Amino acid sequence: MIDYQNGEIDVNSRFLKFATPQEVFKDYISRIISIKEFQQLDIRNALNRVSYEDVVAPENFPGFRKSTVDGYALKARDTHGASDGLPALIQVVGEVKISQEYAGTLKSSEAVWVPTGGIVPRGADAVVMVEHTQVFGNYIEVMKPVAPGENVIESDEDIATDEQLVAKGIRFRLGHIHACLELGITSVKVYRKVKIGIISTGDEIVEPNAAKKMGQVRDGNTYALESWLKTKGGEAVRVCHVPDNPELLTQAVRENLNSYDVLVICGGSSVGTRDYTVDAIERSGKPGVIFHGVLTQPGKPTIFALIDEIPVLGLPGNPVSFMVSSRIFLTQVLRKREGECVLYPEPDGMVRLKRNVPSRQGRESYVRVKLKPENGELWAEPIFGESALVSNMLKADGVVRIPVGHEGIYAGEFAEFYRF
Amino acid sequence: MIDYQNGEIDVNSRFLKFATPQEVFKDYISRIISIKEFQQLDIRNALNRVSYEDVVAPENFPGFRKSTVDGYALKARDTHGASDGLPALIQVVGEVKISQEYAGTLKSSEAVWVPTGGIVPRGADAVVMVEHTQVFGNYIEVMKPVAPGENVIESDEDIATDEQLVAKGIRFRLGHIHACLELGITSVKVYRKVKIGIISTGDEIVEPNAAKKMGQVRDGNTYALESWLKTKGGEAVRVCHVPDNPELLTQAVRENLNSYDVLVICGGSSVGTRDYTVDAIERSGKPGVIFHGVLTQPGKPTIFALIDEIPVLGLPGNPVSFMVSSRIFLTQVLRKREGECVLYPEPDGMVRLKRNVPSRQGRESYVRVKLKPENGELWAEPIFGESALVSNMLKADGVVRIPVGHEGIYAGEFAEFYRF
Repeated sequence: MIDYQNGEIDVNSRFLKFATPQEVFKDYISRIISIKEFQQLDIRNALNRVSYEDVVAPENFPGFRKSTVDGYALKARDTHGASDGLPALIQVVGEVKISQEYAGTLKSSEAVWVPTGGIVPRGADAVVMVEHTQVFGNYIEVMKPVAPGENVIESDEDIATDEQLVAKGIRFRLGHIHACLELGITSVKVYRKVKIGIISTGDEIVEPNAAKKMGQVRDGNTYALESWLKTKGGEAVRVCHVPDNPELLTQAVRENLNSYDVLVICGGSSVGTRDYTVDAIERSGKPGVIFHGVLTQPGKPTIFALIDEIPVLGLPGNPVSFMVSSRIFLTQVLRKREGECVLYPEPDGMVRLKRNVPSRQGRESYVRVKLKPENGELWAEPIFGESALVSNMLKADGVVRIPVGHEGIYAGEFAEFYRF
Repeated sequence: MIDYQNGEIDVNSRFLKFATPQEVFKDYISRIISIKEFQQLDIRNALNRVSYEDVVAPENFPGFRKSTVDGYALKARDTHGASDGLPALIQVVGEVKISQEYAGTLKSSEAVWVPTGGIVPRGADAVVMVEHTQVFGNYIEVMKPVAPGENVIESDEDIATDEQLVAKGIRFRLGHIHACLELGITSVKVYRKVKIGIISTGDEIVEPNAAKKMGQVRDGNTYALESWLKTKGGEAVRVCHVPDNPELLTQAVRENLNSYDVLVICGGSSVGTRDYTVDAIERSGKPGVIFHGVLTQPGKPTIFALIDEIPVLGLPGNPVSFMVSSRIFLTQVLRKREGECVLYPEPDGMVRLKRNVPSRQGRESYVRVKLKPENGELWAEPIFGESALVSNMLKADGVVRIPVGHEGIYAGEFAEFYRF
C-alpha cells in the first residue's frame, strides 16, 4: 500500500539529495568518464563524431605561394607611388595557368599573369589585381601601388606543419572535415558511438500500436527518446517495458548494465514508480543515486545515478519534464560519455521574448517557446499552459532558460534558447 | 587565351544578373518546386523528415479525465472555504491505482485517492493535492479549496479528435514524433530524401588521397559538402571531377540532370572556371541562369540556375565563400525541394558580439565567429582575416549576418547567428 502522506519526495524524505542544475553539472556530469574504444573512420563519415586524438597538419598549407586574385605577380617596390595619373610601366614577361609554375625568376619591372589560386613566381612578392592595370601590348600600366605580400598567401600562412587541426574531445564540424581533406588526411580515429539503453516503466504504459484501454497511456516517451537520441549521436535502444514492480525493475537494470554505456529509466508519473527507480538503482551497485531531483521547473523529479562508471538517469514521466531533462541533462551525459570535452550545455543562441515570462522562485525555469523570426531578429513566443500536456511540446521549437534568482524575463529582453 | 581585361565578371559583363539575397529568396528559391515522391515510414524513423500530408488526431487525448497530481478526487464545492484553521472533512471511500477505474460515482463529501496520471472517478470534478490534506482514519481534512477542474485534464483537453498534429511541409521534430506515438500513429508519409549531385571542377583540383604536386589543391570542398549535406537530410553524392573544359563540363551537367533532384557545381577559383559553369548550364536547358552572383560578402560569385525544375547552383571555389553560400542558399534549395514550407533561412539564434564588426557597403556580410558562452549569454568572437584561408573555417562555429545598409555591428550588440 502506498504511503499517501509521503507524497512527493521532498526535503523530509530519506533521499535528501536535491541539487541545483549547477551542482548536477559540477558534481555529477563532471564525474562521467568517457568510453575508451575508438573507430577508424573515413574522414567523410566523421562529421559530428568526437575525435579520439589530436589531429595535426602533416604539411604546410597551401604549400606554395598562392595568389588570391586574378592579376600580375611582380615586385611590390616597382609599384611604389603609382597612381591613375602616374602609372608604373611594367613588362609582362609571361603567364601561368592554374597550378603551373613559372620557369624563371622575376626581375625588376617584370610581371607575370597569375590566376586566382595560381603559383606566385619566384622573385615576385605581390600580385596586383587586374582591375588596377591597363594593358599596352607586352606592357601593363599599374594604377595603384601594392604592398609586399599583398594578395599572396605564403606557403605556411594558412596552416603550418604540426599545427593542431582538431583536438582530442572535439566534435568534428564542417570546417574540420574540410581542413583534413585539404591536408590529405583521409582517415581519423573517433570515439565509437555511445550505446544507450532505455527502460520504460509504469503499469499504465502500453505499446504505441496497442489497443488502448481506458486510463492507459501509449509509450510515446521512450520511443520518441530513442529516435531523438539517434540524431544526437547515440546508439539508442528502447530495451524493454517493466511494470511497477521493484524486483522486475531491479532485474532489468542489472541485466542491462553490461550491455550499455548509459542507462535511462523512463518513469511512470506516480510517486511509487519513482521510488521503485531509486530502489532498483541502489540495489544494483555503487555509488548509486547521486542526486534525487534537481531544482528545475519542469524536470524536478530527475534522478542522477552512477553504477560503477555507467551513468543511470531516471527521467520523469510527464512529457514536458521528460523532454526538458533530456535536452538539458541527458545530452550532456552522452557528450561526456562519448569523449567530448564539455560540461554545461551551450544554448543554440539567444532569443527575444514576445511576452513577459514569470519564473518560480528557487528553481531554474525552462519555458517552452515558438520561434518567430522578424526583421532580422529572432523572437520567441512563450507557450503557457499545463506542462503535462503533450500538445505543449507539439508547438514548441525549444525552451528558454530563466536562471534561478530571476523573477522572470520581460518582453523584449533576451534569453538563452535551447532547441529540441 | 583568357581575356585579361574582362577580369571579375561585373556589371559590364554579359550576365547582368547580380541579385540581392532577398531577390534570391523571392525570385529564385520561391520558384523551386518540391519533389513529388513520398515514403511510408515507421514514425520512429521520421524525425527530421518532411511530412507529405496533414497528420490529424484519430481520437481525443488523453481520452479520459486524468489527474495531474497524487491526491484525492472529490467535488470542488465540498472544499469551498477550507483553510488550515477550518479544514473540510471528507470521507475517503476508495482508492484507484494507475489506469484503474473507480466502480461507483462520487457523492458529496466523498473522496477517492488517485495517483498522478490516474482516472478521475465519475462524480468528481477536481483533485486536491495530497500535500493539502491530513488523514484521519477513513477521513481527510482538506486545508485548501480547489476550483472545479483543478488538477484534472479533460478527455479532449490536450488534443481533440481531428486536430492537426503535423501539417504537410513541416519537418518532424521531437514533439511531433512524441504526439503521434501517444495517439497511436505509428506510420507516416514523408517526402523521400532529395538526391544531390555534386560536380567538382578546376584544373588544379586533385583527389584528397592523391600525391599533391606544386600548385595543386586537394578537393576538400566537394567531399566536405557531400558529408555535410547528408546531415542536412540530403542524399548527396560527389559525382565526378571535370577539368576546366567547357565541353566536358556541359557533358557532365547533361548526363547528371536526370539522376539528381539538385545539381551543384563547385567551381575552381579562377574566372575561366566560373564562365565555363555558366556556359555549361546555359547549354543544358531552360530557363538556365537566373542570377549570376549575389550581393553577399563572401559568396558573391554564386550562380543560381534552373534547368526545367532542377535547381543548379554554381558555388565559388574559395572555401569560406563556398561554405557561406552552402549554409545560406543551398540549404534553402534543399529544404524547398524536399517539400518543406520555407523561404528565408532562420538563424539558430542571436549572439552578442565581442568586438565591432565593420561591413562592406552594398553587400550583406557574413562574418565568421567563434561562440563563447558567458554568464548566461552567448557571445561571439569575430574571426577576421583572409576569407581564402582554410584555417578561418576551422575555428568558426558559424557566421553572423550584417544586413545590407548597416555599416557594421558594434561590440555588445546582437546579431543573427547561423551555425555550420
